[in-house]
Amino acid sequence: MENNIHSHDLIIIGAGPAGLAAAIYTSRASLSTLVIDESMAGGQIKTTHQVANYPGFVDPIAGHELARNMRDQAARFGTQFELAAEITHLQLDGSEKIVTVDDTPYTTRNIIIATGSSPRLLNVPGEIEYKGSGVSYCATCDGEFFKDKDVTVIGGGNSAMEESLLLLQMVKSLTVIHQFDELQAEKITANKVLNNPKTKILWSHEPREFIKNNEKMLTLAENLKTKEIVKLESDGIFIFAGMVPNTGLVKNTPLQLSEYGYVVTNENMETNLNGVYAAGDVRVKKYRQITTAINDGTIAALNIIQKH
Amino acid sequence: MENNIHSHDLIIIGAGPAGLAAAIYTSRASLSTLVIDESMAGGQIKTTHQVANYPGFVDPIAGHELARNMRDQAARFGTQFELAAEITHLQLDGSEKIVTVDDTPYTTRNIIIATGSSPRLLNVPGEIEYKGSGVSYCATCDGEFFKDKDVTVIGGGNSAMEESLLLLQMVKSLTVIHQFDELQAEKITANKVLNNPKTKILWSHEPREFIKNNEKMLTLAENLKTKEIVKLESDGIFIFAGMVPNTGLVKNTPLQLSEYGYVVTNENMETNLNGVYAAGDVRVKKYRQITTAINDGTIAALNIIQKH
Repeated sequence: MENNIHSHDLIIIGAGPAGLAAAIYTSRASLSTLVIDESMAGGQIKTTHQVANYPGFVDPIAGHELARNMRDQAARFGTQFELAAEITHLQLDGSEKIVTVDDTPYTTRNIIIATGSSPRLLNVPGEIEYKGSGVSYCATCDGEFFKDKDVTVIGGGNSAMEESLLLLQMVKSLTVIHQFDELQAEKITANKVLNNPKTKILWSHEPREFIKNNEKMLTLAENLKTKEIVKLESDGIFIFAGMVPNTGLVKNTPLQLSEYGYVVTNENMETNLNGVYAAGDVRVKKYRQITTAINDGTIAALNIIQKH
Repeated sequence: MENNIHSHDLIIIGAGPAGLAAAIYTSRASLSTLVIDESMAGGQIKTTHQVANYPGFVDPIAGHELARNMRDQAARFGTQFELAAEITHLQLDGSEKIVTVDDTPYTTRNIIIATGSSPRLLNVPGEIEYKGSGVSYCATCDGEFFKDKDVTVIGGGNSAMEESLLLLQMVKSLTVIHQFDELQAEKITANKVLNNPKTKILWSHEPREFIKNNEKMLTLAENLKTKEIVKLESDGIFIFAGMVPNTGLVKNTPLQLSEYGYVVTNENMETNLNGVYAAGDVRVKKYRQITTAINDGTIAALNIIQKH
């Protein structure tokens, strides 16, 4: 451990489950550990209403509570935090890495990139404006607000259909707007949605604008074949257009990314840069779950601990 | 889901964190899931005094409590259990697999082997006899019983030295018996043990017998150079001779094992046998932690769910 307060054995960028798991391990092993996040601790789970499948909790636990537990656990072992902080510069190459937070430079020899991923935006007028007040990206998080109401779903891939199945347990009706003539999701899941009497589908349409009118949401959708614009009214719009990795910070660094923009690692979570690791949803992997994120964080941490 | 009560979508052998994580996922996805274990649920964690580094619990949680939580969580989603049950026959090849438990055959198309690993025995007289009453394999579990007492440690590898560091925080003295002239552990850890004033070392010795005398434990150790037998008295003996995979059940099956006897899988937890997966400590992997075990269980489960 170094004495300079701006120098750390390890800096973790991202305070979701991957980053917090790593912090728990490294700070317990007496490595001075700083976790930096541009938001509060928790990553995607802090906005998840209830987490039911994280092993160890008999009953579902609120996402923000699980996030707070992990943060407090890391803090108890000595992890330091810079939350809701803007990273203005990042230098990943060389043996001494520099993370500049709100104009204060922090140095370290080890960095874990654990910035996660975010829902892909459609970039349609009204989308950002009504995010959280009519436009949602997560059925698990917001579905219960639309009990016995009418919702519009944008998307036809696997996650769109899985989220739709969740919504169908609650809503009065669900209208899917999909750009193609058939759903991209696996047949079993797609058929469950299609065969539900609450489901309607608008094939070959794309949303062009979202408008709020009193408490109703209007979707203006273009028929891609006739170019006709239809107006669809519902109580809420769910956009399921996939996820994108949160890699804006590393764009101008030599860190290797996949063609879809995820960080490439080996099974030890090592990237192409010496001393730079990636863990959790931001890296190339097949399944993105809390359990797989804390696995990555653990492995990155144990590798760094062994080097010390 | 099949109606025959002895047929399941998935049978999981081993009720430790890997098996229970898989069960939570598959039973939540409505796959009929049976977990079989020759002991009670929990695997190694049920005998772990306190778990401090499993993310989500601010304060350490008793291992048996974490194990019970995971079991109850799986049961809440519909997982069925056959615990403290003897598996008398196992057929892993072919599309229909058979697990015979206490002479009752259960059939399934998917099996997850999650039987974990166990401490390696020295096979020295007295070892089994005094296991749990003078001979221990886990500093985290039993260390606190030897506060301000004298302990003997057998072993000189990484885990032996890491466990010794834990013990040194509690005990009055710690004597390492090691068969070689130097410790096999990494220098940093080894030096921390060697430099502690409480530490003594008996180089080039091997234990030949453990004897209990009133409340004291006697270790008869042979000097490998002079063949002389020395007698060492302490309050407890800790044996850290590594771990062995619990693969007795699969020995007479075509399941591929590594040269050290661990189950070989790919990153999807698939083994060489169709429909047979392995997860957790029993498989070939670098780090064996609760976090990495539940990762494996999750991945095996999601693969099986996707096939359905």
